[in-house]
Amino acid sequence: LRAPPAPRLAAQLAEVGRLCYSRGWAFGTSGNFSAVVSREPLRLVITSSGVDKGLLTPAQIVEIDERGRVLAGSGKPSAEASLHIAIAQTGGAGAVLHTHSIWSTILSEDAKDGGGLAIEGYEMLKGLNGVATHEHREWLPIIENTQDWVAAAPRVAGMLREFPATHGFLIRRHGLYTWGATLSEAQRQVEILEFLLEAMGRKRGTTWQP
Amino acid sequence: LRAPPAPRLAAQLAEVGRLCYSRGWAFGTSGNFSAVVSREPLRLVITSSGVDKGLLTPAQIVEIDERGRVLAGSGKPSAEASLHIAIAQTGGAGAVLHTHSIWSTILSEDAKDGGGLAIEGYEMLKGLNGVATHEHREWLPIIENTQDWVAAAPRVAGMLREFPATHGFLIRRHGLYTWGATLSEAQRQVEILEFLLEAMGRKRGTTWQP
Amino acid sequence: LRAPPAPRLAAQLAEVGRLCYSRGWAFGTSGNFSAVVSREPLRLVITSSGVDKGLLTPAQIVEIDERGRVLAGSGKPSAEASLHIAIAQTGGAGAVLHTHSIWSTILSEDAKDGGGLAIEGYEMLKGLNGVATHEHREWLPIIENTQDWVAAAPRVAGMLREFPATHGFLIRRHGLYTWGATLSEAQRQVEILEFLLEAMGRKRGTTWQP
Amino acid sequence: LRAPPAPRLAAQLAEVGRLCYSRGWAFGTSGNFSAVVSREPLRLVITSSGVDKGLLTPAQIVEIDERGRVLAGSGKPSAEASLHIAIAQTGGAGAVLHTHSIWSTILSEDAKDGGGLAIEGYEMLKGLNGVATHEHREWLPIIENTQDWVAAAPRVAGMLREFPATHGFLIRRHGLYTWGATLSEAQRQVEILEFLLEAMGRKRGTTWQP
Repeated sequence: LRAPPAPRLAAQLAEVGRLCYSRGWAFGTSGNFSAVVSREPLRLVITSSGVDKGLLTPAQIVEIDERGRVLAGSGKPSAEASLHIAIAQTGGAGAVLHTHSIWSTILSEDAKDGGGLAIEGYEMLKGLNGVATHEHREWLPIIENTQDWVAAAPRVAGMLREFPATHGFLIRRHGLYTWGATLSEAQRQVEILEFLLEAMGRKRGTTWQP
Repeated sequence: LRAPPAPRLAAQLAEVGRLCYSRGWAFGTSGNFSAVVSREPLRLVITSSGVDKGLLTPAQIVEIDERGRVLAGSGKPSAEASLHIAIAQTGGAGAVLHTHSIWSTILSEDAKDGGGLAIEGYEMLKGLNGVATHEHREWLPIIENTQDWVAAAPRVAGMLREFPATHGFLIRRHGLYTWGATLSEAQRQVEILEFLLEAMGRKRGTTWQP
Repeated sequence: LRAPPAPRLAAQLAEVGRLCYSRGWAFGTSGNFSAVVSREPLRLVITSSGVDKGLLTPAQIVEIDERGRVLAGSGKPSAEASLHIAIAQTGGAGAVLHTHSIWSTILSEDAKDGGGLAIEGYEMLKGLNGVATHEHREWLPIIENTQDWVAAAPRVAGMLREFPATHGFLIRRHGLYTWGATLSEAQRQVEILEFLLEAMGRKRGTTWQP
Repeated sequence: LRAPPAPRLAAQLAEVGRLCYSRGWAFGTSGNFSAVVSREPLRLVITSSGVDKGLLTPAQIVEIDERGRVLAGSGKPSAEASLHIAIAQTGGAGAVLHTHSIWSTILSEDAKDGGGLAIEGYEMLKGLNGVATHEHREWLPIIENTQDWVAAAPRVAGMLREFPATHGFLIRRHGLYTWGATLSEAQRQVEILEFLLEAMGRKRGTTWQP
């Protein structure tokens, strides 16, 4: 029997997961969430695969190392653990949140691979880390979906190095990844990006009569 | 006075019913829900007809046999009990959930009888039982509505044999049926299918500017 | 100091009012709700004018007679009390609910005076009192808005006699009226009609690709 | 250590802030809220900059003077404090609420500077202070966004003097400001205006078939 993972971080992570579920961003066991426990060596707590996020408890969170091996807790880490590790390593994130919302699913169908979604000129952009004015153009890269994230993780790491200023990315017909230095910063950013995606999506459904 | 139905299953069923109501999928006494108590002989617990799902209690759930006769509890089983029985018999389901959501109502108007709705390429499809990749095409058959489900049950059973891989079906201008080996699997699937129906519906209302 | 109104009915009415508010159907002190205490002579409990329905308590409900005079409780009855009285007298309703939802506001802009909105072929119609099949055509008359409901009440009574089968009506750019023999029947009908109005409204916003 | 700000007003303000957050009008630390403590000299309680409105407590509210200097409590007042002060001074408001909703964001893109949004003929308009009939035309001015509200405050004060009858205004791609003599009046108005903005926005997304 392994020791339980970092209890305070796991409890915070479970709370953020239940919040995302309550907003309809993590229905049907979708979505996964992580937070960095230590940097050297890299250790993360991450949600187990296939658990109901509406009832998420710290017991459904495991601690993993930089190769995705379980160090503490019981359960299988999310199949997308390699993405969380890549984001923690490349971008220096302290927490990574991945949601499956209606609007990120729809808007991620927009662009071809190598493409993305631009969001520009909105006050809400100031909620993103380091953005001090609405006169900001956020570029959310859109990457293709896959079922082999171990193989795809270097591609994501490369994209993060190519776009060091980005605060998130979309996976086509799949959802949104965002991150922050802390869990509360990441939570603020997921609210900001989901808000902006919803605004962009609803705006498209509106007949303009300026 | 009959004995009460299987108490633990009835309590779980009542909880799932209240959850569906809280999401707007079972307004105004609509929707009905069942779970298999035993296979041989077939016994199901099912919601009584005409009860408010927002206040659903185990006392509003009855136990029926394979011909829809009440064995335990008081109340009239749902008028669609014969559909629940057919699904339990043909597809081997352990729990059957039927919701009346806005999006299933709208999207079920799409196709002619014998038609259906295809949902393809979305990560959320992996929440369906046995689906391991987003490269999956889910075909939801759409059947005509009727007020005589005893007469229509064999037609539904035939459709389930024709499409053994389907995870649900729509009744035109009426709603969604889905099922699972257990109540929690069925609950996960209703969240997945309602999410995908909402995404398909909202996508249609959006002006694309790719 | 007047005696408080019928306490059990007032408490039920307050609960229904808070439910309507929680669904966004009675924002900003809008909406009003009543229930019949006695028929001969006619006595109703009705929400006071200008109260926040999210915090509605029995103390904000007054009892009135057939001419709208306050018999019990303190507060001014809703300015639309004459409509509630007309509906209770003409249609024999035991409870009357009036909501201001987004969809009833939008859809009531549709038709000219003397016009209305037809809803046909939906299973949810069976939630309306006395409707036994989805093969039903519900005609919701749309009447013009006014600020003098005492003067307009006879016109509404006439419309109810002209359409004795209707389960509700819309006031243009204003909202929905529905009623039932009891408060719970009226609550079921407001859920059914608001659901159908939302479905009709969202369907219009969807690009069909059948 | 400074003394805490007016405790009862701060507690009410925190409650209104949490309500706005729960409706999705103040995601990701957005939105700010104030109430007048005294008129001569002018003193306001106002939310601190950058706090999560879903967890808003009186400890995150500061008291400021007419030049935005902190008199009580700890924390930095909102960057838009000068706007709140201008509205309290020019319009005589006792409470000012500023929300970042989806619909105010979208609809504020409509008009050029000096322009605005007209809302006319809706019963819900009667929820605005001093409006006694639906035959009312509300003109919501739309002003350009900026990051220097100290410099922009005189422009806003001028606009309020130009349109003394207005109950709110929009900042482009940013959100809504409204106010009232008391916090509960301001809360009623934010519900009314957000309802009307949502109705206008959804109406645009609907294909009319009158």
